[in-house]
Amino acid sequence: MLPETYSPQVASLIPLFYIGWSDSVLGPSEIELIQNKINNFDWINEADKQLLLSWMNPTNPPSSDLHQQWVETMQASAKKMNPDGRKSLVDLGIEMAKVPSENQTWLTKEVIDALKSLEAAIGVVSLELHSHILTHQQISEEKNAILSSSKIDVKGLQHVLDDDYIEIRENVFRILHDPMFNLETIRNKEEYREQVLKWVHLLAEQGYGALHFPEEFGGKNDMGAYAAVFETLGYHDLSLVVKFGVQFGLWGGSVLWLGTEKHHKRYLKEIGNMELPGCFAMTETGHGSNVRNCETTATYDPATDEIIVHSPTLSSGKDYIGNAAAHGQMASVFAQLIVDGKNHGVHAILVDIRNKEGKVAEGVKIEDCAYKLGLNGVDNGRIWFDQVRVPRFNLLNRFGDIDEKGVYSSPIEKESKRFFTMLGTLVGGRMCVPRAGLSAAKASLTIAIRYALKRRQFGDNDQEEMLIMDYPSHQRRLMPRLAKAYALDFALTYLTDRFSTRTEEDMREIETLAAGLKSVATWYTTDTIQECREACGGKGYLAENRFADFKADSDIFTTFEGDNTVLMQLVAKGVLGDFNKEIVSGGLLGMINFASERFMATIREKNFRNIYNTDEGHLKDPGFQLDAFVYRERDLMVSVGQRLRKFIKRGIPSYQAFLRCQTHLLEVAHAYVDRIILEQFLAQIEACEDPALKKTLKMLCDLYALHTIEKNKGWYLEQGCLSGAKTRAIRRVVDKLCKETRNDAFALVEAFGIPDACLAAPIAVF
Amino acid sequence: MLPETYSPQVASLIPLFYIGWSDSVLGPSEIELIQNKINNFDWINEADKQLLLSWMNPTNPPSSDLHQQWVETMQASAKKMNPDGRKSLVDLGIEMAKVPSENQTWLTKEVIDALKSLEAAIGVVSLELHSHILTHQQISEEKNAILSSSKIDVKGLQHVLDDDYIEIRENVFRILHDPMFNLETIRNKEEYREQVLKWVHLLAEQGYGALHFPEEFGGKNDMGAYAAVFETLGYHDLSLVVKFGVQFGLWGGSVLWLGTEKHHKRYLKEIGNMELPGCFAMTETGHGSNVRNCETTATYDPATDEIIVHSPTLSSGKDYIGNAAAHGQMASVFAQLIVDGKNHGVHAILVDIRNKEGKVAEGVKIEDCAYKLGLNGVDNGRIWFDQVRVPRFNLLNRFGDIDEKGVYSSPIEKESKRFFTMLGTLVGGRMCVPRAGLSAAKASLTIAIRYALKRRQFGDNDQEEMLIMDYPSHQRRLMPRLAKAYALDFALTYLTDRFSTRTEEDMREIETLAAGLKSVATWYTTDTIQECREACGGKGYLAENRFADFKADSDIFTTFEGDNTVLMQLVAKGVLGDFNKEIVSGGLLGMINFASERFMATIREKNFRNIYNTDEGHLKDPGFQLDAFVYRERDLMVSVGQRLRKFIKRGIPSYQAFLRCQTHLLEVAHAYVDRIILEQFLAQIEACEDPALKKTLKMLCDLYALHTIEKNKGWYLEQGCLSGAKTRAIRRVVDKLCKETRNDAFALVEAFGIPDACLAAPIAVF
Repeated sequence: MLPETYSPQVASLIPLFYIGWSDSVLGPSEIELIQNKINNFDWINEADKQLLLSWMNPTNPPSSDLHQQWVETMQASAKKMNPDGRKSLVDLGIEMAKVPSENQTWLTKEVIDALKSLEAAIGVVSLELHSHILTHQQISEEKNAILSSSKIDVKGLQHVLDDDYIEIRENVFRILHDPMFNLETIRNKEEYREQVLKWVHLLAEQGYGALHFPEEFGGKNDMGAYAAVFETLGYHDLSLVVKFGVQFGLWGGSVLWLGTEKHHKRYLKEIGNMELPGCFAMTETGHGSNVRNCETTATYDPATDEIIVHSPTLSSGKDYIGNAAAHGQMASVFAQLIVDGKNHGVHAILVDIRNKEGKVAEGVKIEDCAYKLGLNGVDNGRIWFDQVRVPRFNLLNRFGDIDEKGVYSSPIEKESKRFFTMLGTLVGGRMCVPRAGLSAAKASLTIAIRYALKRRQFGDNDQEEMLIMDYPSHQRRLMPRLAKAYALDFALTYLTDRFSTRTEEDMREIETLAAGLKSVATWYTTDTIQECREACGGKGYLAENRFADFKADSDIFTTFEGDNTVLMQLVAKGVLGDFNKEIVSGGLLGMINFASERFMATIREKNFRNIYNTDEGHLKDPGFQLDAFVYRERDLMVSVGQRLRKFIKRGIPSYQAFLRCQTHLLEVAHAYVDRIILEQFLAQIEACEDPALKKTLKMLCDLYALHTIEKNKGWYLEQGCLSGAKTRAIRRVVDKLCKETRNDAFALVEAFGIPDACLAAPIAVF
Repeated sequence: MLPETYSPQVASLIPLFYIGWSDSVLGPSEIELIQNKINNFDWINEADKQLLLSWMNPTNPPSSDLHQQWVETMQASAKKMNPDGRKSLVDLGIEMAKVPSENQTWLTKEVIDALKSLEAAIGVVSLELHSHILTHQQISEEKNAILSSSKIDVKGLQHVLDDDYIEIRENVFRILHDPMFNLETIRNKEEYREQVLKWVHLLAEQGYGALHFPEEFGGKNDMGAYAAVFETLGYHDLSLVVKFGVQFGLWGGSVLWLGTEKHHKRYLKEIGNMELPGCFAMTETGHGSNVRNCETTATYDPATDEIIVHSPTLSSGKDYIGNAAAHGQMASVFAQLIVDGKNHGVHAILVDIRNKEGKVAEGVKIEDCAYKLGLNGVDNGRIWFDQVRVPRFNLLNRFGDIDEKGVYSSPIEKESKRFFTMLGTLVGGRMCVPRAGLSAAKASLTIAIRYALKRRQFGDNDQEEMLIMDYPSHQRRLMPRLAKAYALDFALTYLTDRFSTRTEEDMREIETLAAGLKSVATWYTTDTIQECREACGGKGYLAENRFADFKADSDIFTTFEGDNTVLMQLVAKGVLGDFNKEIVSGGLLGMINFASERFMATIREKNFRNIYNTDEGHLKDPGFQLDAFVYRERDLMVSVGQRLRKFIKRGIPSYQAFLRCQTHLLEVAHAYVDRIILEQFLAQIEACEDPALKKTLKMLCDLYALHTIEKNKGWYLEQGCLSGAKTRAIRRVVDKLCKETRNDAFALVEAFGIPDACLAAPIAVF
């Protein structure tokens, strides 16, 4: 349909309709209001009214073709207007209604007032979108010009990032494009929770929640696909991500991984399709990270063949439990399992907490966690149990069972090993959470970089103001973080791959890996979103530009699924364990090998030529970079090992010895994770067969590697394994790489593949 | 009144009344509901009803004596109960109603249900407060025990921090204690704005807004007092702080400092008492930091003797303007003043934007900035002017005037100097904002440290779990930041003193100082609140524990009143200017003096013995510490000076040369601010006459100084002016100081003097 085919009256309303739909401000009540207004306009004929009302049908919104037509007609009219940029939508509508052959007697003051009242009814219109109409064409041209000025193969790079789940990502993005997923600020937690619940239902109905479940229960047995969905939802709304993760990852995962066939048959299908919303009730008020010391008891009563779940104190209440405050019907409750007077340690037991009508079960007390810093779309709550009885069936019995005679048995003899095996179920969450956080960081970087490529501020006196992206300090803020987003993406994919192809023996290493990457990636997320917010100044502070929610919602990622500082200590212990094994298993030979390996590294590093080698080629040599990372990890390990041994020799109990070395151990964990990330980046480059892509990846990897060395230069200089001349040279190369990546910045964030609609921030419109 | 004098029926209700008032959950509607319920209770006699209703009077809440009585009776009864800690308030009430001599026939199931329905009507009761009743006594004893185990003179230290405004702080705290100032989560911005408006009115009525105004206009001409109020309000609600600052500091300040007597007489009194809420309309959408290039025009029209204020483009709208979206009636509009076709640069003009009834003025267009990341109690908006005419009188004419003949004149010839003089009005805001931010950081530290002194997690197998404050990593997170809170407090007081006693010649230096301290202090605030949130784990994420609002509200402090990165460049230029002057003014002699001074510093630092001197006494020597700070500042200045000279010699335009050195210049600015802060800390120690206090201050100063050197150890090692052995020794001393200050941590935050009621976070209850 060409614009000429509309009557002038209809044409005058097009800008308002366009904005109404584009800005996603039309709620049901606004739609009704506008329908009423249109019905009452006596200056529109009946046929036109029907056409206009057909454009207002919320279940059948205007097609994207129609949208595009509107844009083109509006642009054509906007070009005819005086370009001072301050026209209202009504002004544009009047311009569009101008038909040379007709007179405009219908356009009375009353009609203009009616148009204005309609503009008011549509509500707040963001300025950027307004100017967006007027300059849409210009902007698209600018975007294409920027992209074509870069040599980056955006699609190719996106494929490298998307690993094997390109199709599933596209499907999720398509779903998120549904008007039902429009982002709006819902400040009230009750309303927000209902919104998120609807979203989770919709995803469940389409089978996205059960992807990691076995096929007989509606799944595809594909953890990688599940992780890809989780990651993609992270671009949209993190309350949705967390609610989704609670239901399918934690609650579903506990039944899947800790339960046996009988539980799977009874529950998994209903969990996957959201008929049975549930909770993962592990954390207690008094025992956040120290799950092993939780106070809740589950006592087997042979008289009735039941298990009695009980919270003996206020502090033993299960705390921060997602799905608890409003929607959960059942919970996997982690409790000390007591059989015949003997405590067998923490096990999970299924307990009904609410019926389908929402009535809380007898003996269960639930309290709302109320407003949180973020994630207010998730109904976190506290749960206490007062001697709640459940059948023996409800014990998730994969790693510990009670038979019909009331006798406890476990395939894992040692209690501590059993405990850590059960905790292995947390690996799924630790794999997924950092991916959603990384999505939020990538979206933030995309918004900040796009803005920095439009925003001008200050400059040389007689010239146009400078793009803020051209300030070295701005490049320093954004570019190393951009490189690290790539680095973390590869490392997290590696983790998922390791998990998907795991054997029993791998689990310990995978747990260490998951704990370390979860911590480093979520700290990175907090830091990156903050830096991006600040880099966008006042604009970054407006809720519409997304940082507000990304920041608030992801802030807890450094705490939940394991507090980062606690996890990093586990990492250090895991790494030291391997290190000890390395020495012990090889006996004397291993010792010598290790020593000589270390000797070699030392030689390499302490070698006079290399300490003072400031040559750019040398600094960009992956051999030098990896050596520097490995050397840091190894040296910190050896020195903490020596300190520990010294303390223990002096008769200091091992707990105290570890405590004294705590900050040193945390350093070991950081060095370990950094090294893993670099290795995976280098492996990715190695595997890449396209020379141009390889070059792009190498540039990003150099920035990641050298920036990390620069950050730790204090340590390297202190050790004497880098000279001041060399660290200065590294700084110069990092500066240079920031400038180089700046030239491709638009393309490098474009390769994250976040659709504009999902990005949503007005300041990011290109 | 002793508990025995109450009837059992009244006694049974005391816990509910106590919680109702303590938890501040009683809004007018709840009060009405409860009054109705009580009136309908047929098991209470008329006299008791009157007593109970008198306790429900919102304009006359129970006295603190009565409160204390309640607490004591409840504690006595609680002690008699089975101490499993899971009793409800109703259970406690029933216990309290037990009188040995009486039978309890009145206590039927119906009465108990009535009590339960009342408990429900009172609403959500926080767990902490609940347990607080039961263990109040214990906790007070614990607090006293902790305080008395520390040798810190809390009151003495508080006096050092409070400078000369102890009384005014106490008064503000008393006002904040009024039930009207109870903190509650108001999620809806319109309601929140009205709440904050009421608060500002109340403070204005009591004369707190006008403190910095001359006495004839209701003030006390006391900038220090105004700053102290601003700082104290920062413990409460930062939306209140910002609205207060917009009205009295920015809007009032513009009339006071840029206007002349005629404006003062006409407006200051009404501004101070909030009869005339107004805006400071400086920032534009397109020109955030670059005020000098703002687009709004103010054109003098000699025909009518008026000034025409106009926004020529969309991007010239005044943006983020506080008081604009809802309450402001007038605005100081910064615009290019054009007289007789000549642009005289940016001047401020008063423009009416709304009448008293809230109707927006003709030719003015206002848009709401909508939801922001935080500060949603402030009505930020955007303003455009369409050829708005105001009388010539409205030009704030202290630094530039138009006479009756239409001729422009200014006491400051040079346009750029005139501009920067006018911008000097911003110094007030730059002095106050970091103080409010520091208050938020101090409150956060207090909450996190108190929590860490109660919260236990993990530990040696057979022992009680450890206090998280005893983990070295936790000490490392909180203690250096605690020391820096003291350091910044002294530096900000110094800044206010310098401003209060300024002469014309001081202004440039004060501006540099204000820009630098504002930036460093607000970055510190963002970082510290974040670290405290994480240090409190999941509890830190709950809105009730305050970090949510502190974080969100203070986040913009790094951007407004001048973006920190932009300000730090001004600082660098200011410092380099002084440095050049130092050389130039002294001529050759100055040059030699400077060179020899530098030579001496180099000698001192490069001296073999000192480079390797790892002796604790040496590291704690203020001479060494200050030398290290001065050396860093000087060396960075000299080297950037050399680089700039080199570029300029090579024919690179000075703008480009500065751009190339941008990150280096930012380092200079940081080093300058760090040195100022240390100097002020040392001066404070020097001035302290009490030996015990002196020792406390020295301990904190050592931690600040050595931690700062440690943070910059990469630079020192790169320069070769500290050896690896010495930086390692510094690390050990910092660890030791963290442990030392940990022992006094409770007392050190107690000295901030934040009343418990103002702290408000349940996890901080001691």
